Amino acid sequence: QIDSARLWGTIHETAKFGATPKGGVRRLTLGPEDKQVRDWFRNACEAAGLEVHVDALGSMFGVRKGRDMSKPPVGLGSHLDTQPTGGKYDGVLGTLAALEVVRTLNDAGIETETPICVCNWTNEEGSRFAPAMMASAAYVGDFTTDDILSRRDAEGVTVAQALDSIGYRGDRPVGTQKFSGFVELHIEQGPILEAENKTIGVVDSGQGVLWYDGKITGFESHAGSTPMPLRRDALATLSEIVLAMEAIAKKHGPKAVGTIGEAVIANPSRNVIPGEIAFTVDCRSADAAIMDALDRDLRAAIAEIAARRKVEVQFDLIWRKPPTHFDPKLVDAVENAAKMLGYSHRRITSGAGHDACNLNTVMPAAMVFVPCKDGISHNELEDATQPDCAAGANVLMHTVLALAGV
Amino acid sequence: QIDSARLWGTIHETAKFGATPKGGVRRLTLGPEDKQVRDWFRNACEAAGLEVHVDALGSMFGVRKGRDMSKPPVGLGSHLDTQPTGGKYDGVLGTLAALEVVRTLNDAGIETETPICVCNWTNEEGSRFAPAMMASAAYVGDFTTDDILSRRDAEGVTVAQALDSIGYRGDRPVGTQKFSGFVELHIEQGPILEAENKTIGVVDSGQGVLWYDGKITGFESHAGSTPMPLRRDALATLSEIVLAMEAIAKKHGPKAVGTIGEAVIANPSRNVIPGEIAFTVDCRSADAAIMDALDRDLRAAIAEIAARRKVEVQFDLIWRKPPTHFDPKLVDAVENAAKMLGYSHRRITSGAGHDACNLNTVMPAAMVFVPCKDGISHNELEDATQPDCAAGANVLMHTVLALAGV
Ligand SMILES: NC(=O)NCCC(=O)O
Ligand SMILES: NC(=O)NCCC(=O)O
Repeated sequence: QIDSARLWGTIHETAKFGATPKGGVRRLTLGPEDKQVRDWFRNACEAAGLEVHVDALGSMFGVRKGRDMSKPPVGLGSHLDTQPTGGKYDGVLGTLAALEVVRTLNDAGIETETPICVCNWTNEEGSRFAPAMMASAAYVGDFTTDDILSRRDAEGVTVAQALDSIGYRGDRPVGTQKFSGFVELHIEQGPILEAENKTIGVVDSGQGVLWYDGKITGFESHAGSTPMPLRRDALATLSEIVLAMEAIAKKHGPKAVGTIGEAVIANPSRNVIPGEIAFTVDCRSADAAIMDALDRDLRAAIAEIAARRKVEVQFDLIWRKPPTHFDPKLVDAVENAAKMLGYSHRRITSGAGHDACNLNTVMPAAMVFVPCKDGISHNELEDATQPDCAAGANVLMHTVLALAGV
Repeated sequence: QIDSARLWGTIHETAKFGATPKGGVRRLTLGPEDKQVRDWFRNACEAAGLEVHVDALGSMFGVRKGRDMSKPPVGLGSHLDTQPTGGKYDGVLGTLAALEVVRTLNDAGIETETPICVCNWTNEEGSRFAPAMMASAAYVGDFTTDDILSRRDAEGVTVAQALDSIGYRGDRPVGTQKFSGFVELHIEQGPILEAENKTIGVVDSGQGVLWYDGKITGFESHAGSTPMPLRRDALATLSEIVLAMEAIAKKHGPKAVGTIGEAVIANPSRNVIPGEIAFTVDCRSADAAIMDALDRDLRAAIAEIAARRKVEVQFDLIWRKPPTHFDPKLVDAVENAAKMLGYSHRRITSGAGHDACNLNTVMPAAMVFVPCKDGISHNELEDATQPDCAAGANVLMHTVLALAGV
């Protein structure tokens, strides 16, 4: 059994790095608050006897020796970056629970057969730089390190510059820390476990993701003197696209979602008809055929709207992550650990993306979910209970022990 | 006859203050480019023998002596500020034509009975600070000077701070420069004169304006894991409001327009359902009963949308400018001048707001319109011809001479 109070303490101690007045956390990847929590985490890992190294994209790895150092370690962990208005648990729970597992094994004097490796993956959230789960995507070869290093945030800062500015561009080439498998604990970020009163979600699958960048070019014109029929209004165009996206996701529901989270009017003015808008789209389904249908329907709707409104819409797919099917053996290992510990549990699909989804494409991976209040995440009000967090950490520990061997 | 080439020269000379790559002008009120054009204008006025003074809101007045200095001057002019992506003619034509009238009278050695006064009104555009026609609204007593001085731009800078930063907070209390009447030349900013092949618009009326500030409060939540039916999406709400606004304006058309020109998502992120959006609305009609109907219909639509989507919408009217009916005697004077000079002309309603609309509430006022290309304004592509600009300046001069007496 892990130390529930100690785990809870670290979650609340690190929540001060980027704490918001509403009780949430704003810790954008590779920003100054991220540096603070990374420094804290490195010290804590070293104090727990781990050998810490950092890769070229800033992902942090803390290795605990095993009896057989010829075998790659079992990986466990998550991420410490947050959304602009994020909560205290998303990513943090999984990373600090991994540290807590090591501390517990140390206290109990338990040695494992293979080494284990605590991970903090860079830019899981994807709000400052696209795509989400950026570093693990590069780890599995979906993108080259150079491609990722050159990506820019909204201010034009590259990943390379951001890494250098906080001193976290490591010397290890991406992908060189090998693993025999990876287990990630996370809050569910959805309402199912809470509704069914289950403590543990045994995650067997994850939704696929489509990310698009869009740009509408209409025509700026005077709000007072331009007759309604002559307008080529970029915001009215966007409005139709937003509602079409919503209707399409509902049509393919319940196994589909679609969101427009960003939309920026160029040179906005109260008495000017918007002439240009940049926007982004996030569509998901656990079913690859539905993902294809979402893409098709959305493109058709946008083409119709653009033609009718006589505006130009550029619409580019910038990321496609297929649905995830976690390794059956590892999923069973998670389920066995939950059973053994006597926690109520159910199989579940992840609505969110996770580094484990990327890693699963090159190694056996699995995930453990615990409930979060009202299913709320990506919100400063995100909440979870101490017993549920501890239960998740215990399942994580026993899954890792089963994989690493005692 | 004014000097067409000289007028054209000043328009293009001053267009360099804030020139944009696309051939437009970005000269936000009280910014550094506005200071440049103001300094240029003050020098040009003084060189033309005018006595220049500045009021507490930065409006500039250049007085040319008349034979009878006991009578208030006839005012003429417009504004030198522009939209963020504005053109070279909106406001500029009317202000520089006023200067050109003075230069022409000087060259011809013409003395007028009453003085005349060339004006550059502060913040006509209303994009940096609300409302539009800000200084003339304070001049006529719609707002107190202190109220206006405390208004803030999007960065939180007050009008007072902005005035001080460019050295244009003048010593004359607002409203103390009196006028016997006011005449403003402007491009039409609409398509009518060009379509009917008329050189001069004799403006007899102007649309009323309703400006609102809106804020939608939904709930931020994860784009991947939040089921469609559970969402309280602020952007989907805004989208419905935009399309409702458009439908309502069309329903009351052709004598109504409605625009949402600004919309800002708080803390935007690609994988977060928007939780909060601030937006602005601009509705207009030349018919007061239609203005009331627009207000009623829009409020009803917003209430229905907000209730159905379980979001909060704050919606505040921040400015109501009733429709304008220009002084019949001055309108006749404009028409007579156009006739006398042999220009084709028609009566016309202004779609845009103008300082003359405010001034008309406390003195006789009127306006002269000239065509602009494709009716385009509040756009960098705004265009007008040299002969049309000269024709407008001639009508302005002869209207002013008729009022001031030779
Ligand atoms: N777990 C999580 O919130 N990840 C962010 C990436 C995404 O799913 O949008
Ligand atoms: N003339 C003009 O464009 N004025 C700006 C104020 C407005 O009508 O919106």
